[in-house]
Amino acid sequence: MNFKVRAARKEDCKDISRMIMELAVYEKMPEQVKISNEELERDGFSPNPFFQCLIAEVSDENMTTDGYTVVGYALYFYTYSTWEGRSVFMEDLYVMPDFRGKGIGKGLLAKVAQVGVEKQCVRLQFSVLEWNKPSLDFYIAKGAVDLTAKEGWHNLRFYGQALDQLAKEAPNN
Amino acid sequence: MNFKVRAARKEDCKDISRMIMELAVYEKMPEQVKISNEELERDGFSPNPFFQCLIAEVSDENMTTDGYTVVGYALYFYTYSTWEGRSVFMEDLYVMPDFRGKGIGKGLLAKVAQVGVEKQCVRLQFSVLEWNKPSLDFYIAKGAVDLTAKEGWHNLRFYGQALDQLAKEAPNN
Repeated sequence: MNFKVRAARKEDCKDISRMIMELAVYEKMPEQVKISNEELERDGFSPNPFFQCLIAEVSDENMTTDGYTVVGYALYFYTYSTWEGRSVFMEDLYVMPDFRGKGIGKGLLAKVAQVGVEKQCVRLQFSVLEWNKPSLDFYIAKGAVDLTAKEGWHNLRFYGQALDQLAKEAPNN
Repeated sequence: MNFKVRAARKEDCKDISRMIMELAVYEKMPEQVKISNEELERDGFSPNPFFQCLIAEVSDENMTTDGYTVVGYALYFYTYSTWEGRSVFMEDLYVMPDFRGKGIGKGLLAKVAQVGVEKQCVRLQFSVLEWNKPSLDFYIAKGAVDLTAKEGWHNLRFYGQALDQLAKEAPNN
């Protein structure tokens, strides 16, 4: 199946929102999705955007029964390692179920890698749920290293009240 | 002990480099540090920097025997959650051993939280090694949630040859 990978435009946000929810359902945490279409448009498509996004598009003849031709996306941004320098972090990689196994996920992933390498990034990082064996297998087959398994890194987070409380306790000098 | 938390300047990079290595030694992976002072200066102190940094400074009377008054740092950047929006990621938080237990680490952490909240971030994220019990206890006492333990998130990474290979396989359309 032919598909095209291209940079997302503001008007793709509706498709991206739809697929963000599909991915969250797949990851069994749809109740955690609070983002609005307007926030995505503002944060990704204004000067100094918080993220970049690629989408995968198929031709009209392969349109879904619901009328979609945008069937996958990869959302990423730049981060920094104090050990090695510039990194690219892929927050999401998703392909709609009917379009899997056709090289689309691989194409999106490879494009993020290419964009990162062009920007002198030495790492492409991302997070995967440990029970999500198909995704882990997909990435590890391509040479990814599981740093939580290998070195013991855990992801921690402050949010809600704990984050507000911390912020209030910042020194004022 | 009095200390001041302030935004790092380009001329602080030597102190930051020194402490990056001290932290990597503490984390038992000093061989992974490849960054140069010049890269830090370029990536953090040019237009569109890849990171932001806060440093903790003590007065001359509390100077270390080696002559240092910059005794801690927190390095961070902005990331994005497709579920909740803007986030701040703290890559490093470090305080020199002789200056721990005096509220400096807490001050740096709280300042990162404050800066993030002011930028409408709803999360403050970071990674900790699972054997690093003192750090885990420090964060969890302040309300951080260990998402690897709670939800099973693992950190994965492509680098070196695997990253280059992926980038070469990007679709050309």
